[in-house]
Amino acid sequence: MTPVDPVALAADLIRCPSVTPAEGGALVLLERLLSQAGFACTRVDRNGTPNLFARWGQKGAARSFGFNGHTDVVPVGDTAAWTCDPFGGQISDGWLWGRGATDMKSGVAAFVAAAVDFVRETPPDGAVILTLTGDEEGDATDGTVALLDWMDAQGESMSVCLVGEPTCPDRLGEMMKIGRRGSMTAFFTAQGVQGHSAYPHRAKNPVAAMARLIDRLASHPLDQGTAHFDASTLAVTTIDTGNPATNVIPALCRATVNIRFNDLHTGASLTEWLRAEAATVQADTGVQIAMTAKISGESFLTPPGALSNLIARAVEAETGLRPEPSTSGGTSDARFVRAHCPVVEFGLVGRTMHQVDERVDVAQIPALKAIYRRILTDYFA
Amino acid sequence: MTPVDPVALAADLIRCPSVTPAEGGALVLLERLLSQAGFACTRVDRNGTPNLFARWGQKGAARSFGFNGHTDVVPVGDTAAWTCDPFGGQISDGWLWGRGATDMKSGVAAFVAAAVDFVRETPPDGAVILTLTGDEEGDATDGTVALLDWMDAQGESMSVCLVGEPTCPDRLGEMMKIGRRGSMTAFFTAQGVQGHSAYPHRAKNPVAAMARLIDRLASHPLDQGTAHFDASTLAVTTIDTGNPATNVIPALCRATVNIRFNDLHTGASLTEWLRAEAATVQADTGVQIAMTAKISGESFLTPPGALSNLIARAVEAETGLRPEPSTSGGTSDARFVRAHCPVVEFGLVGRTMHQVDERVDVAQIPALKAIYRRILTDYFA
Ligand SMILES: [Zn+2]
Ligand SMILES: [Zn+2]
Repeated sequence: MTPVDPVALAADLIRCPSVTPAEGGALVLLERLLSQAGFACTRVDRNGTPNLFARWGQKGAARSFGFNGHTDVVPVGDTAAWTCDPFGGQISDGWLWGRGATDMKSGVAAFVAAAVDFVRETPPDGAVILTLTGDEEGDATDGTVALLDWMDAQGESMSVCLVGEPTCPDRLGEMMKIGRRGSMTAFFTAQGVQGHSAYPHRAKNPVAAMARLIDRLASHPLDQGTAHFDASTLAVTTIDTGNPATNVIPALCRATVNIRFNDLHTGASLTEWLRAEAATVQADTGVQIAMTAKISGESFLTPPGALSNLIARAVEAETGLRPEPSTSGGTSDARFVRAHCPVVEFGLVGRTMHQVDERVDVAQIPALKAIYRRILTDYFA
Repeated sequence: MTPVDPVALAADLIRCPSVTPAEGGALVLLERLLSQAGFACTRVDRNGTPNLFARWGQKGAARSFGFNGHTDVVPVGDTAAWTCDPFGGQISDGWLWGRGATDMKSGVAAFVAAAVDFVRETPPDGAVILTLTGDEEGDATDGTVALLDWMDAQGESMSVCLVGEPTCPDRLGEMMKIGRRGSMTAFFTAQGVQGHSAYPHRAKNPVAAMARLIDRLASHPLDQGTAHFDASTLAVTTIDTGNPATNVIPALCRATVNIRFNDLHTGASLTEWLRAEAATVQADTGVQIAMTAKISGESFLTPPGALSNLIARAVEAETGLRPEPSTSGGTSDARFVRAHCPVVEFGLVGRTMHQVDERVDVAQIPALKAIYRRILTDYFA
């Protein structure tokens, strides 16, 4: 049997139009490949979200190594701006082009190829578990969470888990993620009293109150960062009123802020701070300010140790680069896995992810497969 | 012939859905009534804006008394929040309800009824001229201005003019307007650099910059008022972004502020101040802030004298209140008339103007008609 070609597999996956929440054929393709390689496969769909669980080796093995990834992709965006077919899986100029090329179909192809070759050529004393979801880019409520819930119910578990998201800013090997900042979004509604622009003292202006609140929030440094984390950040993403009449003070104004926070904060502590700020502005202005908060994930950390050392050694052996243990960037499904076992993320250079003309340096895909293969070998050594 | 019932006329006008720039049947209704009463009527529409000129008596009369008013109204706003049909013209609980009830269909009804009865019962030696526009609440570029331009071209003129806008804060008779603050509107566009919410240092956030600018402007007292003028005011009327993605810092944010200013400022001096504030925030944030300004009118004053004394005496005779000569409030078309003849404004209590459930105390409408009638009688005595 020949080794699995991870470039061909990545191209095949790109040809599956799996924009969240469409399965697009991606999990079906992987299930066929993994079943043929001796993996016990189970589709763990929940509320229409497609998910795939695959295990090689015995359930309840003392040592089990997990890979996690997603096959869904973000929308194409401005189709006309692409220089290639976003679902063509075309290779040219040394790049593999298409939506999902970096985030994260090539990463999935690399760990699937590594896992299949590894169990076939050097069957380990333990289990290799792959959890693949069709919803990481969307709400993610029935994706990796559904897989983990199902595993708990079935008595399935992973000793450690590697999430194959793109983690490297510029060169393959330079960064892994040992945690992530938390993420929350707060939605503010300021309710004032409508009136005429000429008589502002008779109205209560929700737009002015919102401007003050947002300036207070955006001007406030949350912290300076911690040992393993960058500084927390707050970004106001929108303020909207929709009042076309220049002689009318409107009754309502809405705004949204997104906070990425480190281990000095929790969703609850930030919610309390935001509410206190809103209450201060409300007291100053007489404008009612309501808030709802959505906490997408708390911050978490897998402290540097056995798993991150294992990965760092393999990366260095293959690339010559010692990956920096970082907690930068957005959220990923590692925020769900971390409640179950130590989790680290390592993958491709993510520069074009979510952009027009998303693409990956073709040579990086077998290089990433080799890293994953070495991690498996070392783990079970 | 029976006198014109100003309450029924006001209700009929409210039933005309004349939201700027729609004519809504209001001027057609008035033209019919005035023509039948012997007024020479001419529709003076310009660029789609409906206007009506009506004169009783000879063109070029030595003494001509003018009334000016508008039949257009501001939009209804939140229809669901109204307890009545905004275009129903319903009378209940002693109120006449509907959009335009105070601003200013009842005022128009009162002076039309007064003028018709006056010329019929006591034909004066002179002319009574009514100028009625369908665009005072909008741009007003083709409203009263068009009427005045047309009058100039035709050799029509008014010796004095009374604008029938609502002028009384609480009780009918307590205030007339002998001038107005100026009005200008500034439109800001903040152009930043789009980016991911998780990496705000790689983006330049136009929403945060706009919030800072608007808070600076809204927090700045412009002055404390002058001999005949209240303090100048600034009202932010809208901030808009339209970004639905909580993980994206957008590239663009827009805002509008409206300033009502006294004789300490001019449109030009305020434009300079606004530009300087925008430049300061631009320098602080790196976000480009562009501004366009529209000066709707400079401040003006008809110094206390013959016309204001005439009106004050009539008001006092009818109501027992001596009207305070004020320059408070928004702009009105008096800003255009003032270049042609002495102009004073007097009308209803304006408390609910532009609000949900706009309404007028029914008893005030005949009372206002009586005041206008007495002003005509005294003027031509
Ligand atoms: Zn991803
Ligand atoms: Zn008005």
